[in-house]
Amino acid sequence: MREMNIKPFEQYESEVRSYCRKYPTVFVKAKGSTMIDEEGKEYIDFFCGAGALNYGHNNDFIKERLIKYLMDDGIIHAMDMHTQPKREFITYFEEEVLKKRGLDYKIMFPAPTGTNAVEAALKLARKVKKRQTVFALMGAFHGMTLGALALTTDSCSRNGGGVQLDNVIHVPAPYMFPELDTIKYIETLLTDDHSATGLPAAIIIETVQSEGGIHVFEVDWLKRLRALCDKYDILLIVDDVQVGCSRTGTFFSFERAGIVPDIVCLSKSIGGYGMPFALTLFKPELDIWTPGEHNGTFRGYQLSMIAAKAGLEIMLNEHVEDKTREKGEICKKFLEAEMAKISDKIQVRGIGLIWGIDFGEFPEGTVKKIIHEAFEHGLIFEAAGRNDTVAKLIPQLMITEEDLMKGLNIFRDAVKAIVG
Amino acid sequence: MREMNIKPFEQYESEVRSYCRKYPTVFVKAKGSTMIDEEGKEYIDFFCGAGALNYGHNNDFIKERLIKYLMDDGIIHAMDMHTQPKREFITYFEEEVLKKRGLDYKIMFPAPTGTNAVEAALKLARKVKKRQTVFALMGAFHGMTLGALALTTDSCSRNGGGVQLDNVIHVPAPYMFPELDTIKYIETLLTDDHSATGLPAAIIIETVQSEGGIHVFEVDWLKRLRALCDKYDILLIVDDVQVGCSRTGTFFSFERAGIVPDIVCLSKSIGGYGMPFALTLFKPELDIWTPGEHNGTFRGYQLSMIAAKAGLEIMLNEHVEDKTREKGEICKKFLEAEMAKISDKIQVRGIGLIWGIDFGEFPEGTVKKIIHEAFEHGLIFEAAGRNDTVAKLIPQLMITEEDLMKGLNIFRDAVKAIVG
Amino acid sequence: MREMNIKPFEQYESEVRSYCRKYPTVFVKAKGSTMIDEEGKEYIDFFCGAGALNYGHNNDFIKERLIKYLMDDGIIHAMDMHTQPKREFITYFEEEVLKKRGLDYKIMFPAPTGTNAVEAALKLARKVKKRQTVFALMGAFHGMTLGALALTTDSCSRNGGGVQLDNVIHVPAPYMFPELDTIKYIETLLTDDHSATGLPAAIIIETVQSEGGIHVFEVDWLKRLRALCDKYDILLIVDDVQVGCSRTGTFFSFERAGIVPDIVCLSKSIGGYGMPFALTLFKPELDIWTPGEHNGTFRGYQLSMIAAKAGLEIMLNEHVEDKTREKGEICKKFLEAEMAKISDKIQVRGIGLIWGIDFGEFPEGTVKKIIHEAFEHGLIFEAAGRNDTVAKLIPQLMITEEDLMKGLNIFRDAVKAIVG
Amino acid sequence: MREMNIKPFEQYESEVRSYCRKYPTVFVKAKGSTMIDEEGKEYIDFFCGAGALNYGHNNDFIKERLIKYLMDDGIIHAMDMHTQPKREFITYFEEEVLKKRGLDYKIMFPAPTGTNAVEAALKLARKVKKRQTVFALMGAFHGMTLGALALTTDSCSRNGGGVQLDNVIHVPAPYMFPELDTIKYIETLLTDDHSATGLPAAIIIETVQSEGGIHVFEVDWLKRLRALCDKYDILLIVDDVQVGCSRTGTFFSFERAGIVPDIVCLSKSIGGYGMPFALTLFKPELDIWTPGEHNGTFRGYQLSMIAAKAGLEIMLNEHVEDKTREKGEICKKFLEAEMAKISDKIQVRGIGLIWGIDFGEFPEGTVKKIIHEAFEHGLIFEAAGRNDTVAKLIPQLMITEEDLMKGLNIFRDAVKAIVG
Repeated sequence: MREMNIKPFEQYESEVRSYCRKYPTVFVKAKGSTMIDEEGKEYIDFFCGAGALNYGHNNDFIKERLIKYLMDDGIIHAMDMHTQPKREFITYFEEEVLKKRGLDYKIMFPAPTGTNAVEAALKLARKVKKRQTVFALMGAFHGMTLGALALTTDSCSRNGGGVQLDNVIHVPAPYMFPELDTIKYIETLLTDDHSATGLPAAIIIETVQSEGGIHVFEVDWLKRLRALCDKYDILLIVDDVQVGCSRTGTFFSFERAGIVPDIVCLSKSIGGYGMPFALTLFKPELDIWTPGEHNGTFRGYQLSMIAAKAGLEIMLNEHVEDKTREKGEICKKFLEAEMAKISDKIQVRGIGLIWGIDFGEFPEGTVKKIIHEAFEHGLIFEAAGRNDTVAKLIPQLMITEEDLMKGLNIFRDAVKAIVG
Repeated sequence: MREMNIKPFEQYESEVRSYCRKYPTVFVKAKGSTMIDEEGKEYIDFFCGAGALNYGHNNDFIKERLIKYLMDDGIIHAMDMHTQPKREFITYFEEEVLKKRGLDYKIMFPAPTGTNAVEAALKLARKVKKRQTVFALMGAFHGMTLGALALTTDSCSRNGGGVQLDNVIHVPAPYMFPELDTIKYIETLLTDDHSATGLPAAIIIETVQSEGGIHVFEVDWLKRLRALCDKYDILLIVDDVQVGCSRTGTFFSFERAGIVPDIVCLSKSIGGYGMPFALTLFKPELDIWTPGEHNGTFRGYQLSMIAAKAGLEIMLNEHVEDKTREKGEICKKFLEAEMAKISDKIQVRGIGLIWGIDFGEFPEGTVKKIIHEAFEHGLIFEAAGRNDTVAKLIPQLMITEEDLMKGLNIFRDAVKAIVG
Repeated sequence: MREMNIKPFEQYESEVRSYCRKYPTVFVKAKGSTMIDEEGKEYIDFFCGAGALNYGHNNDFIKERLIKYLMDDGIIHAMDMHTQPKREFITYFEEEVLKKRGLDYKIMFPAPTGTNAVEAALKLARKVKKRQTVFALMGAFHGMTLGALALTTDSCSRNGGGVQLDNVIHVPAPYMFPELDTIKYIETLLTDDHSATGLPAAIIIETVQSEGGIHVFEVDWLKRLRALCDKYDILLIVDDVQVGCSRTGTFFSFERAGIVPDIVCLSKSIGGYGMPFALTLFKPELDIWTPGEHNGTFRGYQLSMIAAKAGLEIMLNEHVEDKTREKGEICKKFLEAEMAKISDKIQVRGIGLIWGIDFGEFPEGTVKKIIHEAFEHGLIFEAAGRNDTVAKLIPQLMITEEDLMKGLNIFRDAVKAIVG
Repeated sequence: MREMNIKPFEQYESEVRSYCRKYPTVFVKAKGSTMIDEEGKEYIDFFCGAGALNYGHNNDFIKERLIKYLMDDGIIHAMDMHTQPKREFITYFEEEVLKKRGLDYKIMFPAPTGTNAVEAALKLARKVKKRQTVFALMGAFHGMTLGALALTTDSCSRNGGGVQLDNVIHVPAPYMFPELDTIKYIETLLTDDHSATGLPAAIIIETVQSEGGIHVFEVDWLKRLRALCDKYDILLIVDDVQVGCSRTGTFFSFERAGIVPDIVCLSKSIGGYGMPFALTLFKPELDIWTPGEHNGTFRGYQLSMIAAKAGLEIMLNEHVEDKTREKGEICKKFLEAEMAKISDKIQVRGIGLIWGIDFGEFPEGTVKKIIHEAFEHGLIFEAAGRNDTVAKLIPQLMITEEDLMKGLNIFRDAVKAIVG
């Protein structure tokens, strides 16, 4: 179709590659909300690295810091040794982000991926509570390495494991069986002496299930879960890898519920500029790690720390949280109104700048067709949810209103073209 | 002791931090073989990010490429979409590195850490062979996420797992019981119908055990292992994360044995500039991955691809492999002669530019003392091996002879000061 | 209290002993529904070896056969060799019991315990379906060896395992969350691609949960479960160890639902005279065992085969099934009426001659007190259910109406004494 | 071939049946060393229920006790309630067997099979030591239920499990690699901090591997293993199911080494008359069981207790241990001399009245042919060992010298006929 040279990918790269199949072009540049391919064609990016680019592509404020640091021969790779950029990052994060929100967490730098942040959280929870089992929710996605994969629920990922995935018990997400009170269900597992289930070390959740299909858990449900964990001495882990970093309108996604998890996993946009970075945060009293008990070669990649701090500065100085909530309202109104015009079978769910448009009642493959249609017209977004029936729209948080509307309009038109 | 401000690390960072305890200073800059702290003190780096900095710190050739790409707003984060830097990297790697060595591998980009490259290798091996068990060697280190951790052998790391580590059978490394033919031992496990052991999907090895204490496996042993795998239809995985990328004097550590593994894991120095990067290579016929079956947010971090290609160019154009072997001879002669002068209880082992000096017959803590002594005199290196009894020296491969000798002399003096 | 010598038990026998603590006497003889202790005191037996004595103690018809066989030096121990008693048993069982009910099962003789019959069933199901997971219900009891224990749900038994109990997923029993359609719940686990749950090899149930607290599953639920298994190619295993052998009013407990399981586990009363015996039955097309793949020293204990055949003759010739249903009606009427008189918080559940009287709304320990009270007045029965809140009454099936009423009256009086 | 009716077995019994395929006849009676088939043909029994018939078939002394008890309506089935026969058995066993040997063990009655005795031992060891892993030897057989199966080593049994067999590490048996000091090997696993192996709860052994091919472990090796377990706080479990009960010339097989295990498993011949029975013995300080934490319906089968006590009386009064050692010498001399005459490739191993004649250097199937040949001439024995290459001769311990020689001569002739 296109004339660009994609042969080397087909010839040399593994069949495991996936997104490139949906967006069959070769990208060269990017800026803000825009990605540009080898032919100069521009695309509005409503995918944003699955949440890794909350401040947009190649933000100039961050970029300057990175280039300066490189030019100065600042140390780049330092394992977990002390460095200046790390000192600055942790001081800023603690004093400007955590303390201002009344949060008191120790910071751990795992290897720079979300799955590694989750693996570290699991290890610590099990070590602290001396229990092996962890509860996770059906619909959850927590990563691809074996410990995190045991939490992850989609069958494609799990089948890839090649071994039994143990030490996790999955409980239904609250939206799955509306007639069932899932907090009561979990409590029954904990208290019924014939439930076959002992106390877990932890319960891990995303407050908004993203890969599961954009399901926003209710504040009341989150509060009750926190109370349940307190009552039964279970750690609450919030995986904020995808919906943290202001995506939902507050820096941490759990802020809207007024709860404080025991452990928090961050990655993706914490790296500011698309840099590999991850944090595992936990209450100080949980910090019973032995030195080096969990480690990783790239946990001291200094460019990420430079970019991360710069990203946090943007977040605070430019009031990204507030603006995200405002733009969220725009999305909500637009999508609810426009989708209703097209079909009453389309469901719209979301919060802040993460929106799911559910085509579960349409034939299989509908979302895939909409993606192709939108791509041709210059919009990139991904599918999520059960059988990929949900269109997931996650623009960068600093998107201009113009770009936002442009993207939404392309989306609406693509939906109309396919299911209208 | 020092006046630098390390309080934020102690106050805010997790107790899991380790190297910073051995090198109690704050680093700001680095160049070539030298790291510079906040007070301007310089250190020769014989640690090199545990093998992540084979081309030295902040190599100018790579640096220029990175800065240019950043300034041009080249796309930074692209998941597994097609990009120009990726096309250039894979083409160069295939045509200049693999083909020239007669190797035919597909390239997979897992998340950018060594442990993730190993997790991907395990998944693929189990999927291909439809068997769950993998054999690993005692003394091995393969990573910290749950799948890789099950392979890793040190008790500190394993205890951190918090769950039973299953689906792996560990066999003794050849140096552990010299009276035992370990290849015959493995074959007995495979053929004795009362060994309690079925066929594994794969056997995974490092050709030089690094964390295990710098044990160089003999060419004949490696050849026999390859033959054994062929005979019993078992995949051979070489984890070249630490000793690949020319560390042992050839780009792949297995080249000296003339064997071809089925799967190869690369990370650390493949990132060129200390950038997070990892590859899992495998024979084309093994490429039965389903699209997206193993994924990761940062597998498309383009700066790593830029740096990786530049690193490979250096490797080839500057004949790094040859020079590594030459410098290896210098190390060998120096260490054998100088250590023998100090004590006949010190053992010296190594190849290329990875050397282990074994103080196993000295009191516990000897190596730790030598590290401290050397650090005070401006040399950084790490301990490895059983109970940390082995001093591990891994200078960058492009080190000048002057810096090399300077480092070796500081090391010799520190040894003399502690055990002389 | 009593003058009998129980010191040797306390001194020499393990603390694991349990029933002897509830019935603190020494038994010497037994006949029909009566157990007699060392002082000549008689007890009505409403416990019956937890269902192992459906034809009563020391039934004369069986006893004669046993004594004759012993006197003739009939072979007693024969592993799985061919013997006359085995030929007679399997011929009678197939032709008089199975065929007459339209059932076509192969017979396997596992080691002579219920848990072993279940272990054999699990092995076969996993082998046939090449899947590792099995579904079981919360509230279930299936045995104490590691494979069966993973199915069993009470926390005391599970904690005894000392290892993680894997390869089983527990689903709520239908009575636990009346608002939840558990068949639909299971189907969601099977079809939702984010349920974290693959297809199991089998679903194992008791049609009446006995240790779980005497919960009789409804016919419609059983039929829907059978249909679900058919739809998704899952084996249905019925564990009829405790409620088979006519206990519920039909020889197999599943007959009332008109369903045919793929595998059936029998033990306890199949041994006729309290003899150790167990059978695993399965559809002929599932019989893919390799010779000797599951074995056991005592699977060819001939006295059990003698007793088993004699027991089946009684069952058929004396119309035990019909009479059980009739006596069941007596129990139902008596218990419902009498318990209602005492308190409207007492629930009565049951079928055939297995009845549970639920004191879950009374203070902890209530049932234990009733047991002690009844024991003093000459009645033996056991507790079951959550926190032992259910009195379980399981008289022998051939009990005279006189003995039945005698036992029921003692029970009623004991209840009145404790909670009246 | 034969006219007996074996059709019902072929039609109705599972394909899992095995011994009946080797001995294709129908047995009806048995006495002492003789089994008699439906046509009246007599066979010398050198198989003895795989060690379950140490006092021969239908011993009159035991038989009388059984018949009397049955005729008196002695209680037959009593779960773990107190009974007269149980009190007599445990008192006799403690006072006449254990104390006289200086042993102090509590007695646990698991379900009446060897595998259940092992499951109970595993549970207790893990509970006491709060560790999950158990070491077992390659070549071992410990049972067929999932916990015991994980210890068992033959591939046919293990494949039948259908799941991964976890929580066990297998170490080579001492005869497998004569060049390797297996005690030192185990100690390395325990002390090398890179062995990937933590402390196990227990090490379980047979002092004579029976199914593994009749390998008698040396006294020195057993003593060193006991010392090793003491040094590292590991429980030593001896599985004496097959080679206990005087089979090796002392009641417990470990007596010859002067060691005292922490836990001992007994079954098979402890039942005296081929009755299902099993014991788990342990040091009193280990008895931390919760009441009912391990249970089983048939652990209180009183006929076994009657027969067991009678069997112990025979053992002591008729000096069975001494006589076993004497007859062992006869076997040794005969077999060594006669086999040497036939071929120097035949190996003879054994102790007491368990002998293995190893045809490992002959073509596959040799032992099977010898079994068929001997069967035709009136001798029954089994194969054992790797690929069934070992003829296993285990006559009852009270065999007359005449019967012993008759059996040995048939065996010798059969060997000659097949390999001579």
